[in-house]
Amino acid sequence: MASRSGEVVRNKQVIFRDYVSGSPEETDMEVRESVLELRVPEGSNGVLVRNLYLSCDPYMRIRMRKLDVPSYRESFHPGSPIIGYGVARVLESGHPNFKKGDLIWGITGWEECSLITAPETCFKIEHTDVPLSYYTGLLGMPGMTAYVGFFKVCSPKKGETVFISAASGAVGQLVGQFAKLMGCYVVGSAGSKEKVDLLKNKFGFDDAFNYKEELDLDATLKRLYVKDEKLHGRIAACGMISQYNLEQPEGVCNLMNLILKQVRMEGFVVSDYYHLYPKFLETVLPQIKEGKIVYVEDIAKGLENSPAALVGLFSGHNVGKQVIMVSRE
Amino acid sequence: MASRSGEVVRNKQVIFRDYVSGSPEETDMEVRESVLELRVPEGSNGVLVRNLYLSCDPYMRIRMRKLDVPSYRESFHPGSPIIGYGVARVLESGHPNFKKGDLIWGITGWEECSLITAPETCFKIEHTDVPLSYYTGLLGMPGMTAYVGFFKVCSPKKGETVFISAASGAVGQLVGQFAKLMGCYVVGSAGSKEKVDLLKNKFGFDDAFNYKEELDLDATLKRLYVKDEKLHGRIAACGMISQYNLEQPEGVCNLMNLILKQVRMEGFVVSDYYHLYPKFLETVLPQIKEGKIVYVEDIAKGLENSPAALVGLFSGHNVGKQVIMVSRE
Repeated sequence: MASRSGEVVRNKQVIFRDYVSGSPEETDMEVRESVLELRVPEGSNGVLVRNLYLSCDPYMRIRMRKLDVPSYRESFHPGSPIIGYGVARVLESGHPNFKKGDLIWGITGWEECSLITAPETCFKIEHTDVPLSYYTGLLGMPGMTAYVGFFKVCSPKKGETVFISAASGAVGQLVGQFAKLMGCYVVGSAGSKEKVDLLKNKFGFDDAFNYKEELDLDATLKRLYVKDEKLHGRIAACGMISQYNLEQPEGVCNLMNLILKQVRMEGFVVSDYYHLYPKFLETVLPQIKEGKIVYVEDIAKGLENSPAALVGLFSGHNVGKQVIMVSRE
Repeated sequence: MASRSGEVVRNKQVIFRDYVSGSPEETDMEVRESVLELRVPEGSNGVLVRNLYLSCDPYMRIRMRKLDVPSYRESFHPGSPIIGYGVARVLESGHPNFKKGDLIWGITGWEECSLITAPETCFKIEHTDVPLSYYTGLLGMPGMTAYVGFFKVCSPKKGETVFISAASGAVGQLVGQFAKLMGCYVVGSAGSKEKVDLLKNKFGFDDAFNYKEELDLDATLKRLYVKDEKLHGRIAACGMISQYNLEQPEGVCNLMNLILKQVRMEGFVVSDYYHLYPKFLETVLPQIKEGKIVYVEDIAKGLENSPAALVGLFSGHNVGKQVIMVSRE
């Protein structure tokens, strides 16, 4: 894998073919090879990186459609590589914050090597005594989403009841563990027996259920002490995976409860809170090292397998955070 | 109308017949006469009052069904009078805060005279140089709802865009005027040309539309500069009149926008904020006297006409705040 500056190398890429409607399929992407000159162009402050781990995140489905909300992230470009969060090693840097050999995480391309043109949006990885793949999940965007959604948006208090949907996913598993560490009563839902077992036995949730097997969710939530007469609940909304493949989203019929129970529901995007990342690391790194927080990953190997990994998110195929390993070094 | 303590008088009442499903009708209520002894029972700290104005409020529809949310207000009792906000004069008091002749506003019965058993929930009316009926609207619960929803829940800033649904109603007309006084761009929707005219010409909204005549509300909101790329909007939810008569509420299909636009939506009940009432009066009374705030009421005369007045709320019959005048003194 050693490479010289200026060398022209083959560069395997995962190309986004065209805008998607309905469920994304592997054929919406194409793995192909192009060539890349391993050099940061003259005058550019970009960095050239070798991608090590790529992150499969549900929000990426939103970028597969033609977006009319430019305030959020823009759509993927048909004919160009998928872009998303990843962990990478700097091969050559035109930016003062980074130098050759640095490890970073941030937005990169689904390809072996990428020229990142706005490296100031990336974080330098300083702590390497944890699995590097964690910087796509537990210690990356999903981890920060859990931290911000739980602590900042929900302002939880000890003894409160916390319900998490998609609870075994990249964000949910961490929210549940944060909530348990804080002394909350924690219930999660997920889409298979295996995931429910993880919630109860690995992540220490107080209770959990498979939403596909419950006939009456109202009754389920009542049974598990989630649905009751508590007032002033807070709902942090960071994503809605069940809706992303629908051309016409489902209607939510019980919004009156916002009033009857004086609930606050708040949508947020984690990037608004990235200034809190150092504080987040300070909190979470010791908890990982002390074994107070664990994390389950589902690692696919090789760019060839990345379309299947990404598509699998939407049928719940992954167990834990879905990562793609591109290269070890 | 003079009455002696201990006198037994005829007392006209509006009786709630039984729980309602679908649209409430006049026949869900019955006006009848009972008798009442004009005396606060020995040992009671209640107050006996003559009701002057009664308030027709959309939330009352919620109390017409058998509620399974005791945390909110409880259901009306079949066979007993409707209860709701009103303005009343104290005839006899068992409570140290109130004395004969005092004017109060708070929860009372739909009848000529009522024994209010928890008068500590009522407010004494100190300012009588405004129409007394205002204490059912502008200076009562709906006014406080406007104040709290706008200033406390939405934390508005000068120059922001404010959209108000049911904008000519008891709450909406005041929110719009608050927002204009603050220097916001204000758009409202209502259900008739007459109401839209009020919004534009009497309350000074920047724009308004009849939602029944717009074929594409998305396009309407875009045209009026309400729907755009602004982020971090706040939605104060104090009621949902369009849903109250439905057994199965309508689904809201665009909740993804909470995330895409980082919106906060918050349900609240005004009674949680009644400690702010003195501050509210300090703000609003001078604005009324200086003509900076106006208020439109729709006053029905006599208890006989109160069932029609209440039912009319749900077909949009009223123009402005619906009040019932029971007695002038």
